[in-house]
Amino acid sequence: MFQHSSKLQYPVKVDAPDPQFAMLLQQAIGGVEGEIRVAMQYFFQAMGARGDDRIRDLLMSTATEELSHIEMLGHAVALNLEGAPVSYQEESAKDPIINAILGGANPRHLLSSGLSAMPVNANGVPFDMSHVYATGNIAADMMANVAAESGGRVLASRLYNWTDDKGMKDFLSFLIARDTYHQQQWLAVIEELGGLEKNLPIPNSTPEAHEATEHSYYYLNTLTDKKAPEGRWNTGPSLDGRAEYSTRQQPEPEGQEPSLGKARKGSGAQNEQM
Amino acid sequence: MFQHSSKLQYPVKVDAPDPQFAMLLQQAIGGVEGEIRVAMQYFFQAMGARGDDRIRDLLMSTATEELSHIEMLGHAVALNLEGAPVSYQEESAKDPIINAILGGANPRHLLSSGLSAMPVNANGVPFDMSHVYATGNIAADMMANVAAESGGRVLASRLYNWTDDKGMKDFLSFLIARDTYHQQQWLAVIEELGGLEKNLPIPNSTPEAHEATEHSYYYLNTLTDKKAPEGRWNTGPSLDGRAEYSTRQQPEPEGQEPSLGKARKGSGAQNEQM
Amino acid sequence: MFQHSSKLQYPVKVDAPDPQFAMLLQQAIGGVEGEIRVAMQYFFQAMGARGDDRIRDLLMSTATEELSHIEMLGHAVALNLEGAPVSYQEESAKDPIINAILGGANPRHLLSSGLSAMPVNANGVPFDMSHVYATGNIAADMMANVAAESGGRVLASRLYNWTDDKGMKDFLSFLIARDTYHQQQWLAVIEELGGLEKNLPIPNSTPEAHEATEHSYYYLNTLTDKKAPEGRWNTGPSLDGRAEYSTRQQPEPEGQEPSLGKARKGSGAQNEQM
Amino acid sequence: MFQHSSKLQYPVKVDAPDPQFAMLLQQAIGGVEGEIRVAMQYFFQAMGARGDDRIRDLLMSTATEELSHIEMLGHAVALNLEGAPVSYQEESAKDPIINAILGGANPRHLLSSGLSAMPVNANGVPFDMSHVYATGNIAADMMANVAAESGGRVLASRLYNWTDDKGMKDFLSFLIARDTYHQQQWLAVIEELGGLEKNLPIPNSTPEAHEATEHSYYYLNTLTDKKAPEGRWNTGPSLDGRAEYSTRQQPEPEGQEPSLGKARKGSGAQNEQM
Amino acid sequence: MFQHSSKLQYPVKVDAPDPQFAMLLQQAIGGVEGEIRVAMQYFFQAMGARGDDRIRDLLMSTATEELSHIEMLGHAVALNLEGAPVSYQEESAKDPIINAILGGANPRHLLSSGLSAMPVNANGVPFDMSHVYATGNIAADMMANVAAESGGRVLASRLYNWTDDKGMKDFLSFLIARDTYHQQQWLAVIEELGGLEKNLPIPNSTPEAHEATEHSYYYLNTLTDKKAPEGRWNTGPSLDGRAEYSTRQQPEPEGQEPSLGKARKGSGAQNEQM
Amino acid sequence: MFQHSSKLQYPVKVDAPDPQFAMLLQQAIGGVEGEIRVAMQYFFQAMGARGDDRIRDLLMSTATEELSHIEMLGHAVALNLEGAPVSYQEESAKDPIINAILGGANPRHLLSSGLSAMPVNANGVPFDMSHVYATGNIAADMMANVAAESGGRVLASRLYNWTDDKGMKDFLSFLIARDTYHQQQWLAVIEELGGLEKNLPIPNSTPEAHEATEHSYYYLNTLTDKKAPEGRWNTGPSLDGRAEYSTRQQPEPEGQEPSLGKARKGSGAQNEQM
Repeated sequence: MFQHSSKLQYPVKVDAPDPQFAMLLQQAIGGVEGEIRVAMQYFFQAMGARGDDRIRDLLMSTATEELSHIEMLGHAVALNLEGAPVSYQEESAKDPIINAILGGANPRHLLSSGLSAMPVNANGVPFDMSHVYATGNIAADMMANVAAESGGRVLASRLYNWTDDKGMKDFLSFLIARDTYHQQQWLAVIEELGGLEKNLPIPNSTPEAHEATEHSYYYLNTLTDKKAPEGRWNTGPSLDGRAEYSTRQQPEPEGQEPSLGKARKGSGAQNEQM
Repeated sequence: MFQHSSKLQYPVKVDAPDPQFAMLLQQAIGGVEGEIRVAMQYFFQAMGARGDDRIRDLLMSTATEELSHIEMLGHAVALNLEGAPVSYQEESAKDPIINAILGGANPRHLLSSGLSAMPVNANGVPFDMSHVYATGNIAADMMANVAAESGGRVLASRLYNWTDDKGMKDFLSFLIARDTYHQQQWLAVIEELGGLEKNLPIPNSTPEAHEATEHSYYYLNTLTDKKAPEGRWNTGPSLDGRAEYSTRQQPEPEGQEPSLGKARKGSGAQNEQM
Repeated sequence: MFQHSSKLQYPVKVDAPDPQFAMLLQQAIGGVEGEIRVAMQYFFQAMGARGDDRIRDLLMSTATEELSHIEMLGHAVALNLEGAPVSYQEESAKDPIINAILGGANPRHLLSSGLSAMPVNANGVPFDMSHVYATGNIAADMMANVAAESGGRVLASRLYNWTDDKGMKDFLSFLIARDTYHQQQWLAVIEELGGLEKNLPIPNSTPEAHEATEHSYYYLNTLTDKKAPEGRWNTGPSLDGRAEYSTRQQPEPEGQEPSLGKARKGSGAQNEQM
Repeated sequence: MFQHSSKLQYPVKVDAPDPQFAMLLQQAIGGVEGEIRVAMQYFFQAMGARGDDRIRDLLMSTATEELSHIEMLGHAVALNLEGAPVSYQEESAKDPIINAILGGANPRHLLSSGLSAMPVNANGVPFDMSHVYATGNIAADMMANVAAESGGRVLASRLYNWTDDKGMKDFLSFLIARDTYHQQQWLAVIEELGGLEKNLPIPNSTPEAHEATEHSYYYLNTLTDKKAPEGRWNTGPSLDGRAEYSTRQQPEPEGQEPSLGKARKGSGAQNEQM
Repeated sequence: MFQHSSKLQYPVKVDAPDPQFAMLLQQAIGGVEGEIRVAMQYFFQAMGARGDDRIRDLLMSTATEELSHIEMLGHAVALNLEGAPVSYQEESAKDPIINAILGGANPRHLLSSGLSAMPVNANGVPFDMSHVYATGNIAADMMANVAAESGGRVLASRLYNWTDDKGMKDFLSFLIARDTYHQQQWLAVIEELGGLEKNLPIPNSTPEAHEATEHSYYYLNTLTDKKAPEGRWNTGPSLDGRAEYSTRQQPEPEGQEPSLGKARKGSGAQNEQM
Repeated sequence: MFQHSSKLQYPVKVDAPDPQFAMLLQQAIGGVEGEIRVAMQYFFQAMGARGDDRIRDLLMSTATEELSHIEMLGHAVALNLEGAPVSYQEESAKDPIINAILGGANPRHLLSSGLSAMPVNANGVPFDMSHVYATGNIAADMMANVAAESGGRVLASRLYNWTDDKGMKDFLSFLIARDTYHQQQWLAVIEELGGLEKNLPIPNSTPEAHEATEHSYYYLNTLTDKKAPEGRWNTGPSLDGRAEYSTRQQPEPEGQEPSLGKARKGSGAQNEQM
């Protein structure tokens, strides 16, 4: 069960409101790299977690923290929209602020939300929940979480670079820090479970008999005019410790030509197909 | 530039056509764990890859292989739909095949595609390209790729478990094998670039001055009635080698209460809000 | 069956074409507060209306009016796009009009629609029909309609505030007026059906035995550091006349800890989860 | 800032797991009538609330409760999926359970989530955040909330009717009760703000000069072969106390014929249009 | 301006209600081959039509007819849902009708719409307006319309084949007939404008100087292991009368290798990319 | 099976990088008129093609070419983003380039993709695969392809008009040329199959007995205040050679009034509806 405390997790200050930056911040709320995504991803992973209950708790606890990040970002967006023009007659609606609102800003901050945050990205596209990756396989989920936190920290770093607002920079430095930790938190779960070698390939419960292992350790070079790039991916022992990597140059199709033959009567095709 | 050879990468056989399994296979084509996703993800990452050209080639080459996987799965779906009833009068349309088509199968395989594959998942929801994760940061992209291949191998393993068609099992064992390799292929790129310790936190180019590092290494326990779960995530040296992990129990909000005050005139609020 | 008269419901004039305002107007066509939404919502409610046929007629008749609103807005968008530049060489394509087109305007008005309206919102996001709320419960539908018309009139008021084009202001004052009426029209249906007290809770056909009525009249304060806000919501008789409102401070979970135990063999989990 | 207690708000029991009912329950999680929607809607309204801080607290507090409802439903889905077949060889995978899984159940509960809840509706369509209605106008938002809770209680009642599982019926009777209260809670806010008459039309801050009031109080009958239905909507004083309702029979278009003339050179039209 | 007559365009009868067929019919309402699509496509094309006003009238008139088709289909869905079970206790809810509802039918017809039509396809996916193709180029629009009506008649034919309900077959034979006409109606517009030769390539207003005409008339065979298929597409005079078709076998890339070089400082990449 | 050659199909040069044009080019990648759409449409049509294998080869071969077009456009976008500002401190980030980035450009090119292409349109809306039209009917598919290539060439012509970058104009003249050919290529398939008269109505395999042919050849004028527009569509022999066109003025509904009667008990309606 969730509870709420009325203060923000970390102070959110805006020195100079900026409706354009309000729009950029939306990416951190409703973008695929954003906080709604991680909050909901960890929440659904927690609800489906089987096995070690510590990991379920870790997921739910972090989902809860991410909800608090949405809350801070939502406040940051509203503060950046303070003073944005709402009517043509307003002093502030003269050039170049009109350009600001209509040029680089999201007009729906004015038209739809009344100068506050929306669950959309920096293009105004609403977040959709298909981005909640939760497979029921703990290692696959951890990898998805590391990916999400990596994208998140890339985004926060770019926002930090963009703005020169001191309040916003301080706030973003906090988000950057938490993303630093969360990347490692999820990788630490893999270590707790025995490390990469023991967990690969994911799922490690697939019986070897279900796998055509003769195809499991080569890099397939599909480039017709270039040699295979050489590197760790086709040299040395495999990361799961079961084989040596190799290269299969010049791919040879092993399968048949996939012709389907004639169409059936009554299937809605043209007569010429039958 | 792409080219095409008329044969399939690997043989695709179906011993007993099964319209229900055709629907399940759609998840491997148009699901978020599916092949359109990885093909397009690697393709867009390749087009945005900066730095080592070997990695760009690796991405484009694997994108090309994944396109061939779509092709095989598309053929597998069509073969599983051979003989499905298209009219009520057909012999085969009697119970229980009607139930099969309308019960567990996708009616749009009949109504919309004329008994062939569609770019949708097992619920008939079309794939959308927001799932193409490509950040321009090579480490973040690799993590997204490992996550995608992990979800993919989980899915292929579940499909393998479900069916008892020999042809399909053989084909899926090939996909499972390629997913095994691709998981490690992307992790091997991280190793090639210096390994986890050197690459964390992602992006490793964010100056330390941009980060509130006092918040970078603790697990925040937001659970009010339970102690923090203990494990690698809050014990020992951090995975990036820069600090020791710790726990912050009982979160204390550090921020303000986020009140926005009155609404402005002309902003479309109710009079009572002003 | 629908018919069409070749004239617009109300005159639509634009004194000074403005491609930026064309983009803002799109919110009233393809936004969730827009006219496609209400036209389709009333249409589908009408097609599913059971009970009093007067209400079905009311719904279909108003759906028809809303289609005419789309038509006027579509014309307004096209008029605002008259004279927008289509090639770089045009006189009009010099600063600041290029900025207008590319800055605050929708580039797809140029690229995709050939200077006319599209079924998208002010961010260019296409309307999707999941926003057609039609439950088959007449009271729930009326509430959804009041909500839609309220959002619609908020939007029209904001558009009116923004523009200083006389023709557009006149046209918007007409839309504002019709929204005024439609809000009340749908509330009047509730009154016709006996008023709020008789219609609450919605659906009023749910037998009391299906409801844990001990949980039906308290405000649950989930805030851990603040007393419950006091007001009509936790004071006095309930709006359905069946009880008194109260407050439940400091929520106590009544349920269990939701642990799922081990994962099953063959379910695609990691070995460590079993 | 959010916190979490490890127990559920209310006990969730399932007497006989039923994968078909798991799918139906998804509508209450990820449907437009579901709990993700209200949780996020109240959360975003709270973050944008201006004016009386009590209402902001009310919104945030209820958002928090709705998060706990998602948690209970997520657990209910997982419990209903206990024992569902994951491989063809399992005893339980024989008819009619295969039909259950593939017929009326969501195959992605098996393929994608590993037998747990997903943020999708009963058709497997992911929830998207465009359904978070938050305008910054408190009365419009309250109406949207009443609509959401009405749809929610209609859904919960239908789920209650469908199942005969005692545990599920008990759990649903709790959700029905909370929806009963929340409908009234939001209507009580309107009362607290002065009642309908004072709050209509929404927004009540739109100056009368912005409205073509001669069009504000008539029902427009667009039906060509039927008289206007008579009722409260076209009889008596208006609900905002400003006028009398009337009917305008046989609509007469007042506007022009919306011809756009020729296409411009360079606009990508056919020569025949110029 | 639109008007409405209270009767349906054509009689809609259902002899034996069938909830499964109700779901299939949804494809003709909310599928990409369905009636919402064509109604809205012709409506938006009409609002953007420049040039000959007869074609604008044709578009608006046909849009209006398609709205009437939605109305008939909506009624057909509701009639097919008459008698579907709503509670577990109902006589009719026993096997095999439960299987019908949950197996091949759309559970949201019960849960969400109260036994009536929804603006979704046969998988329950809502229609989205990105499928409204309206370019402002009359020939491109006509081609899109022929495509839409072709898909529509394929669908109607498949629905006709599937059902053996006499009422439904009669109704579908009407829709098939109207699709027959509408395919030709839009092709007739091309003829009216001078025929294919004069209208190709679309847009025919693109100056020849904007086109690398040496690439305009060859079929490019990208197949590496197969000769180009021979046919009208690479033999004889071009359909626009400007050239002869030919084949370019064995594609030779003419462009450069698309390397992007190093990543820039501050762009959020890894250090290793710089 | 697909292969890849490391060079582009055609040279892609950008003389003066322009982040605004980068955003416009996105329409040609991820718009409904774009290259992802045609690549995937031809690919899925090929996988479902039944009948003449030459047409399957044609589809697959052209799908392959379109993948190469995506590759060129992706490179064009990245080149146009060279030098765009990534931090506020950069020299280049001063007015007016900030306006360029935030005004007319896509902020996600900076925030999300690291200055490279994304699978989205010019509004930043991701492409979704529901736009892959593939019916299994070869004539319907060809019409959809002609429509797609027509929209594509309209778009490429508009992009050509907009830019004055020499490199981009050269590249676009190549795309315009290929669209010229592909329009005719698909129409040539119709000719190869016997021409329009033999192929209409689509599908031509629908038995005449399934069609209410008395409704197959008239234009229905639904306009109440205007005579039917006269033209090829209601004059002369039908394009399928089976009848003469005519007009039905003043539509008379032939169907019933679609009243549904009372709601059923237990269906979640209001008591007043029963």
